[in-house]
Amino acid sequence: MPEVVIMKEIKGRNEEYAEANRKKLAKDHVLMVNVMGAPGAGKTSFLMALCKELKARGIRSAIIEGDLYSSIDTDDFVKEGFYSLQINTVGECHIDANVVRQGYDKLGFSDGVVFVENVGNLICPAEFDLGEGLRIITASTPEGDDKPYKYVPMYSYVDAVVLTKCDLKDAVGFDTEYFTKGLRAVNDAPVFETSARSVESASGIGAIADLVEGEYKKI
Amino acid sequence: MPEVVIMKEIKGRNEEYAEANRKKLAKDHVLMVNVMGAPGAGKTSFLMALCKELKARGIRSAIIEGDLYSSIDTDDFVKEGFYSLQINTVGECHIDANVVRQGYDKLGFSDGVVFVENVGNLICPAEFDLGEGLRIITASTPEGDDKPYKYVPMYSYVDAVVLTKCDLKDAVGFDTEYFTKGLRAVNDAPVFETSARSVESASGIGAIADLVEGEYKKI
Repeated sequence: MPEVVIMKEIKGRNEEYAEANRKKLAKDHVLMVNVMGAPGAGKTSFLMALCKELKARGIRSAIIEGDLYSSIDTDDFVKEGFYSLQINTVGECHIDANVVRQGYDKLGFSDGVVFVENVGNLICPAEFDLGEGLRIITASTPEGDDKPYKYVPMYSYVDAVVLTKCDLKDAVGFDTEYFTKGLRAVNDAPVFETSARSVESASGIGAIADLVEGEYKKI
Repeated sequence: MPEVVIMKEIKGRNEEYAEANRKKLAKDHVLMVNVMGAPGAGKTSFLMALCKELKARGIRSAIIEGDLYSSIDTDDFVKEGFYSLQINTVGECHIDANVVRQGYDKLGFSDGVVFVENVGNLICPAEFDLGEGLRIITASTPEGDDKPYKYVPMYSYVDAVVLTKCDLKDAVGFDTEYFTKGLRAVNDAPVFETSARSVESASGIGAIADLVEGEYKKI
């Protein structure tokens, strides 16, 4: 069984904690990546593929999993041999800087990339700076191509957009042009197309690994 | 252009407003249905099919649409001839009882069913009683069959579960038994299977219309 930590946030001091995290991460030579997205956007499958790709490149990674309840995702990472820590927010709709720090300190990790899989939510996590170096949103094609028009704060907040389940584009009638137009209205972030179920549609993993590797090497 | 109302909640007095809504709705002979679900769960397509079915049965319905930004969904309902009012929460992650009341009063509706399409979010809306008579969650098969295990407060909160995009079950590997097992651990609510893209998978609309009609007739 993986370690499960139940945590509640301390309200109102998030910026202070985020700043402390930034200093600690720099000292540890760690790139923290905040991975956000709606419930079922495919965050875990995407992270699994990305961590394997980084491992093949000789880059260490660890995963802090955020969920209201359960340790389903952490179980998957542990099965695959990755060190992963589960945070259960017991109802809280996001992870904040203090909560992620408690998880990070328990990891005892350095010289690599720590991915924070945030709680599945397209709204609240965009209000909480974790002190991270890179912010990624996973957007699944079945969610629909109109999401950047509706979830403006989140789509404005991120450094990169990972479009998941691209093998389903035709089946769900996803209009990439319409999606991109909505995104471009608020953000110049690059878009990476991926699919956990189809090798042909999964070319984006290598490209996003390049981005993560590049950011890591800047530290 | 449909009417768009921008509203902010009044914190801390939600139960009081919900109780006032219950009295007003009973007086107006209106069933209010709170429709919740993750971003892209198919709330709008489901509601469109349900409102058409109720119309065919001689039951009037109106839709209050909640979104952070945009009037995309309301535009769709107006195009189809339904009266619909858009609430933009400008970043707020849910609709509360006071906000829905302001929208309801603008509708000037009576003797029928008012659907509230809540903000796409599997967490926060479950904390805000609207004074509604029925709570429905739409869960899409591409979101994954593990959601009842993770989003326990929401799956505990509802009276009915509408499983959407059932035509994609095989394509996304959705395990209905595993989903139902997770749901049954917290709730006895009935499950209705639907699909906006496949007539064969859409049999659930008639059954959920029966449920809504039955609740409406109790008022």
